Amino acid sequence: MTDRSGAYSEAQVIARLREIFASPDPRIEVGIGDDAAVVAGDKRQVMTTDMAVEGVHFRKDWSTGFEIGRKVTAANAADILAMGAKPDYLLVAVGLTSAEDMAWIEDLARGIKFEADLAGMHVIGGDLSRSENVVLSMTAVGHCDKAITRSGAQVGDGIFISSLTGWSAAGLAILQSEIGVSSDAGKLAVQEFKSPTIDYQFDSVRATAMCDVSDCIIEQGKQIADSSGVELSLNENLFAHSQEFADLQVIANELDVSVWQWIFAGGEDHVLLATGKELPGLRIGEVLKGSGLSGVPSGLETSAWRHFK
Amino acid sequence: MTDRSGAYSEAQVIARLREIFASPDPRIEVGIGDDAAVVAGDKRQVMTTDMAVEGVHFRKDWSTGFEIGRKVTAANAADILAMGAKPDYLLVAVGLTSAEDMAWIEDLARGIKFEADLAGMHVIGGDLSRSENVVLSMTAVGHCDKAITRSGAQVGDGIFISSLTGWSAAGLAILQSEIGVSSDAGKLAVQEFKSPTIDYQFDSVRATAMCDVSDCIIEQGKQIADSSGVELSLNENLFAHSQEFADLQVIANELDVSVWQWIFAGGEDHVLLATGKELPGLRIGEVLKGSGLSGVPSGLETSAWRHFK
Repeated sequence: MTDRSGAYSEAQVIARLREIFASPDPRIEVGIGDDAAVVAGDKRQVMTTDMAVEGVHFRKDWSTGFEIGRKVTAANAADILAMGAKPDYLLVAVGLTSAEDMAWIEDLARGIKFEADLAGMHVIGGDLSRSENVVLSMTAVGHCDKAITRSGAQVGDGIFISSLTGWSAAGLAILQSEIGVSSDAGKLAVQEFKSPTIDYQFDSVRATAMCDVSDCIIEQGKQIADSSGVELSLNENLFAHSQEFADLQVIANELDVSVWQWIFAGGEDHVLLATGKELPGLRIGEVLKGSGLSGVPSGLETSAWRHFK
Repeated sequence: MTDRSGAYSEAQVIARLREIFASPDPRIEVGIGDDAAVVAGDKRQVMTTDMAVEGVHFRKDWSTGFEIGRKVTAANAADILAMGAKPDYLLVAVGLTSAEDMAWIEDLARGIKFEADLAGMHVIGGDLSRSENVVLSMTAVGHCDKAITRSGAQVGDGIFISSLTGWSAAGLAILQSEIGVSSDAGKLAVQEFKSPTIDYQFDSVRATAMCDVSDCIIEQGKQIADSSGVELSLNENLFAHSQEFADLQVIANELDVSVWQWIFAGGEDHVLLATGKELPGLRIGEVLKGSGLSGVPSGLETSAWRHFK
């Protein structure tokens, strides 16, 4: 699984873990590898977990506890939505250093509660631990009649996103830049980075395949293409039809970067990427006979964690 | 909620979180504050989460990846057992540094798989993240016909533990000591610290109250007493009736410490503490009319996380 340098990709690790944890239990309809697991008992349940680490996923000098709580809760809820399911419950494990006071912890909890309320989730349990930096690890549980996985895309389907991607990456770029951007669009981008807006009302009932854009469209589009055995053909002109595009373009121009880098390769938007006929949201391409992802502008770098050694 | 120095206890934090996350949803039969949450849909489900942090809960120079995987899995499974439930599913979020190679990650995964198999749990999902030190956060899901909480202890009940506590603390003391202990009992203690043995067959069907001894008997005994509105009266002579007691006493003598410190105030044994009539395991006392915990030897220090600021 490793090359001579010992380096390995996240995909390689996950492939190995799928082998180790393989289970023949017929209740497990969807196991490791999709946005969430699906288990069938008396009802079909959907479960997902997502960890966020201070310094990697959030910074306390950039975001309030409230915003951090919202963001991690949103990431977990989005994985439930991405299975075509309704979120029900949330469990929250938190590692705290000695630097957070009670007010910060309460602010964090209120942010979790705020986003959980938006998602219709109830926080039913958790764990507190000491840690060298703040770590939040959540597990969300939901239910659905029929799970929408990444493997159902059909030739002839359209490709849709629930809203334009790139806002979170734009917000991160603004926070990292020395010049800053003070326009309304810039403020919105920073807010989306701190606490992304999830479309909890996205009507996915007719989607054939779906996933949550947590890494980027390039990564998640490939996952749907590979899982479904089809080609996802994207059209950048269709992205430009979005009303939001002009605003994002203005920010990109101010920072002198390519807006396509953010849209295709930015992360943590938690927009839903779905295939199907006449879905809501923005149509960005079509499903063709073939394989892989096409129509991606050249020269982009994906921000997904590929090699960590 | 805080005193003038800003210090606060874990119990204070949890009390505040219970208020913030309070939910009137009638499906939530047991929410925050017990070993696990219980939700009732078409069947009664039990859910718990537990986080372990390198340097706080485990050390990579003391334990193999396999042992660490087993230990954290066991802690989560024990919380499901402590509700009188059967474990079904496990979700595993892992934060990795750049120091772990693929072999270590596989070893960790195999340890998780090994313990999950013992518990009858299937690993159905997870998350991989970068982190400054290794963090494992798991969520276990199980089911039961009737949940056994901490609040059902009745005057006249006996108090039972599924096996003698103190082994994990003894193992930690051996690892921390400069002299070391090489007896068979010492080796067993070290092994119990690295990967505690859980009694997955403990028959709790007649238990009136139960919890998992993750902190220590002093802490968990108080929780049952407070939740049930009774007094838990422990008798140290009854502990000494255990066949294991003599072995633990030998280790304590070798290290010149009090065996009672380990038994009453040691942590991470994940033994089940239950009240009821004629339960299996070791009888250690009786439930009386009154309040709090009595019969604890004086001069012990509890190791539970109380103040982290």
